Amino acid sequence: MSAAQGRRRLRVGIVGGGRGAFIGAVHRMAAELDGEAEVIAGALSSNPQTAASSAEAWYLRRSYDDYRVMAAQESALADGIDFVIVATPNHLHFPVANAFLEASIHVICDKPLAYSCEEAEALARRVLRGPELFALTHTYTGYPLVKEARERIRAGELGDIRKVLVEYNQDWLMTPLEREGNRQAQWRTDPARAGLSCCVGDIGTHAAHLVEFITGSRIEAVAADLTTFVPGRALDDDANMLLRLEHGARGTLVCSQVACGEENNLNIRVYGSKAALEWHQQEPNTLILKRAGAPWSLLRSAHAYLGDDARLAARTPAGHPEGYVEAFASLYRSFTADVRRVAAGDAPLLDYPTVEDGVRGLRFIEAAVRSSAGGARWENV
Amino acid sequence: MSAAQGRRRLRVGIVGGGRGAFIGAVHRMAAELDGEAEVIAGALSSNPQTAASSAEAWYLRRSYDDYRVMAAQESALADGIDFVIVATPNHLHFPVANAFLEASIHVICDKPLAYSCEEAEALARRVLRGPELFALTHTYTGYPLVKEARERIRAGELGDIRKVLVEYNQDWLMTPLEREGNRQAQWRTDPARAGLSCCVGDIGTHAAHLVEFITGSRIEAVAADLTTFVPGRALDDDANMLLRLEHGARGTLVCSQVACGEENNLNIRVYGSKAALEWHQQEPNTLILKRAGAPWSLLRSAHAYLGDDARLAARTPAGHPEGYVEAFASLYRSFTADVRRVAAGDAPLLDYPTVEDGVRGLRFIEAAVRSSAGGARWENV
Amino acid sequence: MSAAQGRRRLRVGIVGGGRGAFIGAVHRMAAELDGEAEVIAGALSSNPQTAASSAEAWYLRRSYDDYRVMAAQESALADGIDFVIVATPNHLHFPVANAFLEASIHVICDKPLAYSCEEAEALARRVLRGPELFALTHTYTGYPLVKEARERIRAGELGDIRKVLVEYNQDWLMTPLEREGNRQAQWRTDPARAGLSCCVGDIGTHAAHLVEFITGSRIEAVAADLTTFVPGRALDDDANMLLRLEHGARGTLVCSQVACGEENNLNIRVYGSKAALEWHQQEPNTLILKRAGAPWSLLRSAHAYLGDDARLAARTPAGHPEGYVEAFASLYRSFTADVRRVAAGDAPLLDYPTVEDGVRGLRFIEAAVRSSAGGARWENV
Amino acid sequence: MSAAQGRRRLRVGIVGGGRGAFIGAVHRMAAELDGEAEVIAGALSSNPQTAASSAEAWYLRRSYDDYRVMAAQESALADGIDFVIVATPNHLHFPVANAFLEASIHVICDKPLAYSCEEAEALARRVLRGPELFALTHTYTGYPLVKEARERIRAGELGDIRKVLVEYNQDWLMTPLEREGNRQAQWRTDPARAGLSCCVGDIGTHAAHLVEFITGSRIEAVAADLTTFVPGRALDDDANMLLRLEHGARGTLVCSQVACGEENNLNIRVYGSKAALEWHQQEPNTLILKRAGAPWSLLRSAHAYLGDDARLAARTPAGHPEGYVEAFASLYRSFTADVRRVAAGDAPLLDYPTVEDGVRGLRFIEAAVRSSAGGARWENV
Repeated sequence: MSAAQGRRRLRVGIVGGGRGAFIGAVHRMAAELDGEAEVIAGALSSNPQTAASSAEAWYLRRSYDDYRVMAAQESALADGIDFVIVATPNHLHFPVANAFLEASIHVICDKPLAYSCEEAEALARRVLRGPELFALTHTYTGYPLVKEARERIRAGELGDIRKVLVEYNQDWLMTPLEREGNRQAQWRTDPARAGLSCCVGDIGTHAAHLVEFITGSRIEAVAADLTTFVPGRALDDDANMLLRLEHGARGTLVCSQVACGEENNLNIRVYGSKAALEWHQQEPNTLILKRAGAPWSLLRSAHAYLGDDARLAARTPAGHPEGYVEAFASLYRSFTADVRRVAAGDAPLLDYPTVEDGVRGLRFIEAAVRSSAGGARWENV
Repeated sequence: MSAAQGRRRLRVGIVGGGRGAFIGAVHRMAAELDGEAEVIAGALSSNPQTAASSAEAWYLRRSYDDYRVMAAQESALADGIDFVIVATPNHLHFPVANAFLEASIHVICDKPLAYSCEEAEALARRVLRGPELFALTHTYTGYPLVKEARERIRAGELGDIRKVLVEYNQDWLMTPLEREGNRQAQWRTDPARAGLSCCVGDIGTHAAHLVEFITGSRIEAVAADLTTFVPGRALDDDANMLLRLEHGARGTLVCSQVACGEENNLNIRVYGSKAALEWHQQEPNTLILKRAGAPWSLLRSAHAYLGDDARLAARTPAGHPEGYVEAFASLYRSFTADVRRVAAGDAPLLDYPTVEDGVRGLRFIEAAVRSSAGGARWENV
Repeated sequence: MSAAQGRRRLRVGIVGGGRGAFIGAVHRMAAELDGEAEVIAGALSSNPQTAASSAEAWYLRRSYDDYRVMAAQESALADGIDFVIVATPNHLHFPVANAFLEASIHVICDKPLAYSCEEAEALARRVLRGPELFALTHTYTGYPLVKEARERIRAGELGDIRKVLVEYNQDWLMTPLEREGNRQAQWRTDPARAGLSCCVGDIGTHAAHLVEFITGSRIEAVAADLTTFVPGRALDDDANMLLRLEHGARGTLVCSQVACGEENNLNIRVYGSKAALEWHQQEPNTLILKRAGAPWSLLRSAHAYLGDDARLAARTPAGHPEGYVEAFASLYRSFTADVRRVAAGDAPLLDYPTVEDGVRGLRFIEAAVRSSAGGARWENV
Repeated sequence: MSAAQGRRRLRVGIVGGGRGAFIGAVHRMAAELDGEAEVIAGALSSNPQTAASSAEAWYLRRSYDDYRVMAAQESALADGIDFVIVATPNHLHFPVANAFLEASIHVICDKPLAYSCEEAEALARRVLRGPELFALTHTYTGYPLVKEARERIRAGELGDIRKVLVEYNQDWLMTPLEREGNRQAQWRTDPARAGLSCCVGDIGTHAAHLVEFITGSRIEAVAADLTTFVPGRALDDDANMLLRLEHGARGTLVCSQVACGEENNLNIRVYGSKAALEWHQQEPNTLILKRAGAPWSLLRSAHAYLGDDARLAARTPAGHPEGYVEAFASLYRSFTADVRRVAAGDAPLLDYPTVEDGVRGLRFIEAAVRSSAGGARWENV
């Protein structure tokens, strides 16, 4: 990255995320929202025609058919990309991320981190060797009021955490979409591309990460019941789990892709000995604080009464709803700031999910699968 | 009961529920709401002074110090009570109910049915011998929209039930109230009076009954994690469970009496292959119906579009909120109707929770306690 | 009333409210809810058969065909009624109330107070002569959190009141129900029985009273636009008004009986210089407090943090929803307490809407009708 | 604009909106969100230092101190801007917009259209002469479900419109912020820069436009009551109005900048003879449909059951909340599409608020001010 990086938008590449994959467009919007970066190159699809037409629709400067070629060439160009977005199916996270890291290009990667625990750990070892930066897109930690929840728990406002209820329910896989040509459904329900789990891997990991992010406590053990409701499907499409956290908290984690009528219903409640917090992803600009013996407080985004993390994460005044793209963009804001910091010789701040979070995600998947197979017995994460 | 019963309000007695026990006043309001019955006699407390002053405050005709005396005398009087309300701590349910049944007086009794499974089964055997009527006050089944939920599931509107999420969270025991003179807390946390469980017994059984009432499917097995968060307490004050129902549905049951900020947060969601339903006890006049691929419908109490059971259960036009007392009164409405029916020689309709539901409640408690002790392993109910 | 009144339930009569009039059953439930009174006599309908069958359904001791006969006989009986409920159409309020007052029987009467301002003022003069008690059933002031709102404003918590937005929208008259045999619709849309207005008289007066009750400020002037949307209807079925209150507050009052999809949507917001309050009749157990620069607070019924008026008005612990019947019963609680007080020689506390409130209601109707006719010009109330 | 425009992002300039003016950043994010445009030049402030530092923070290619210079130079450059954003105080809308139109540069301009009706009409005449495009940023019409509301009403789903209730309440001016150095408050409360009105001009016009956009009916007359609650303020900070629409509908428009606790509470309800619609800007992804005699339907963004306009306006799957920036970006999406169309020789589609809407906004302000001065008498718009 040139010395002039401080006076220009960063240049960004993307692998995967072409037409038909909504997450690609979300990455582009999120990466560019704050005016700090511009997507200029991509290997947008394994299908060359899709790759080319997607790149043209985005007015990209350079389009590639092969991510390995892209890594090599971008690394060599004077105006090569500053970082790459990995937006492929799970089984490609490791090889793609690795290729760019080896080409000295920073990486921001979709979750779960990898296809398997082994791959995740290998990737973690590579990332920790440095000096390239790595971020994992657990989007939901980008919401201002998720940051506020974390900050209040850190400050002890809830007392001892007793109970955590987290849920992530959807319904988009309630019919066998994978047999009707839906490519998003196809790879997620395919053990060869998704890994050990569909539902737990795709969304359960988001929920588990949210629990650890907000509470600051690790999930120590799970007792899980994974189910496949849609006949003919090889992986779970629904799961219910009991949780045990560090420091004695208990809870449940519920996730489903067959919960009729649910869109993207991620929500969390944390009950402590002094107060509780509740947050709903579908109404993300409100955080409910329940102090013992007092009226509930509705904390709203962008107010002066919030802590620094939350307040600075809002882009508009209170009452101007911010949503998913803005939350995603906050990960990019922190990541691009770190890219600029390391270019300037400063230490990164790492204010985004890391490769270690990604390894924990894979371990969580494996523990859940083991527990369910063993009759819901407790399994350590 | 005299032949003239048809032309007068029924006469009701109550055991327990004197001053300091809110449930006594609720029973009186609920029993009398529809103008079909009047509480006229009581053994309102084991403390004679409380019994007398409570009876006076209620303008009762007859006050007793001892429920056995009450059963004997009321049975012998020309204007004796038509039925009795049992509103005592759990360990007295069996002896009190039994005494009145033996005195040929119908009984309506608080939940859980008894102190133990053994007692519950003994009481069930007595009730089934007849001819006296017996009802168990799982209040929440009296809500119009709970009836609507049952009716729609019965009619197949949800398709196959896949997932059930039920929750009953409170916070009133989040501090050691039992050591601060609160009598309600004292007996509920006392194994000698409450039985095997505090939280699961007191409110978990409500949640479990609601699941079976609405879905029409039995809970077959539980994997439970019971916890005592308040130090020094002998029984559980919090529980999380995985559920398996007949016909393949899975789910969770969460209950707590230490969930800071929660009042009486009973709610249930049932997801099927064609639609889902959601109901919240604290906003009881709305039932959310989520049909696949369609907008959510908000069904509201007292509308013509509801089924008969729900529609007839409403006492006021739509938009006039009805609450807990009205739901409770609906159990009494069905029960008093049965009292009149059997007096007239007709078969009872039994449209209220029965002694068999009560036995299932005790079995549920025992299975949960066993499972938790066994490391959350699946235990049959 | 006998000296023994202190040791028995009060005896209550009712005029109007027979089968088909939901408000009659509500009066009975509300009058009896707290166990302080029992409805024992009635002239339930101008149709003798309806009167008789309604009385039988309620197990009344005495049924009358004519309210004048009832007033005379009850007044003479040793076990005559202690007070009477007037639940007739508007044009009968004055003659019925007057007959019972003249028979030395206390009166609790439906709103609006009378058919016309003249009648209202005549009735007020009679009531103020005493010694009989008189209450007007503006039900909504019986809700605990409406009392809380009043108390907080009285205490200055809102600062100077700036803006009041009140709304009472229904849809039950959105079709010409009065031409399809609905008796409730017939008299309300009939100028001979309803008076000057249908919508403003029937529900606008509730809204206006709620404004004055909560804020403690009088509505000084209105600029109104009354409309009749259903063809063939003689009176208004919809109204929008600008309000000016004492001490400088402004606002709007919106009411309708043709607002499609609305049930009984009465709600109010009061904005002051320091805080604001918001309350919705259809979710009556929550009061929203909005302090300047602070998170919104959700005040919930039955909590210790509420003022005395609200706290004592709740009959169950927090989280057990209370509704319309309970609010109505709170008017009866205050009224029966006053009946007992004056029997015991004490001064009444008058903690319920009075005849003066009723006169203001009629003046409000007349001002609104005049303003609308005059092109929405300001008219003093 | 070069022939190559079709293969690149459009180049955008901005006047106003520098640091301290949140709307500038919103314009940049909104203009760029879909990857169709990039802000590359600006005259971001009348203060040269603010202009320069703001431009640097945005990595702009060219920064100007004077909008006239900017219009002249950009017009002459080979890579000059394709359109300009006018984000200045009201009194500059006309001269700035005019300067760029005269330089043959398309204009997208903040509301209200101009300082006065005269200016607005002059600007309209210039725009209608063409060929430059002109859009007015009534942001709220960019929300997908606002488009859905319009589409359903157009299709007759509501029947005859009877009643419209619109509200836009904020509290940010509840204290005299303009005397504490807040520049946004200063110009809005200054008659020399804001025009005839503060509150009605700034937000009342949004509400009025929303009414006309959704219903397709014009506001014919208003009866208004404008108030200044904060002492020392020259313009209104609060207003209540009665509305009369074409085709017989009535309603109210309420707006305030001193409504304590309100953030940006714009909401609208439209009641028809067959159904009603309700939408809240702060929960913009839900539209409530109330059909006569049926349960309420909650229409949610991004579902297949929506009409084309709404469905295509969503950028993410259902359950991924979209907000204010996305709504704003939808205006830009339509506007940039038109810029490309006219460059390609096609007729513009004009799917955004136009200069005529802007003229109506100014007329609305004037009618409201006249009516209020005349004692809330009806004034035609």
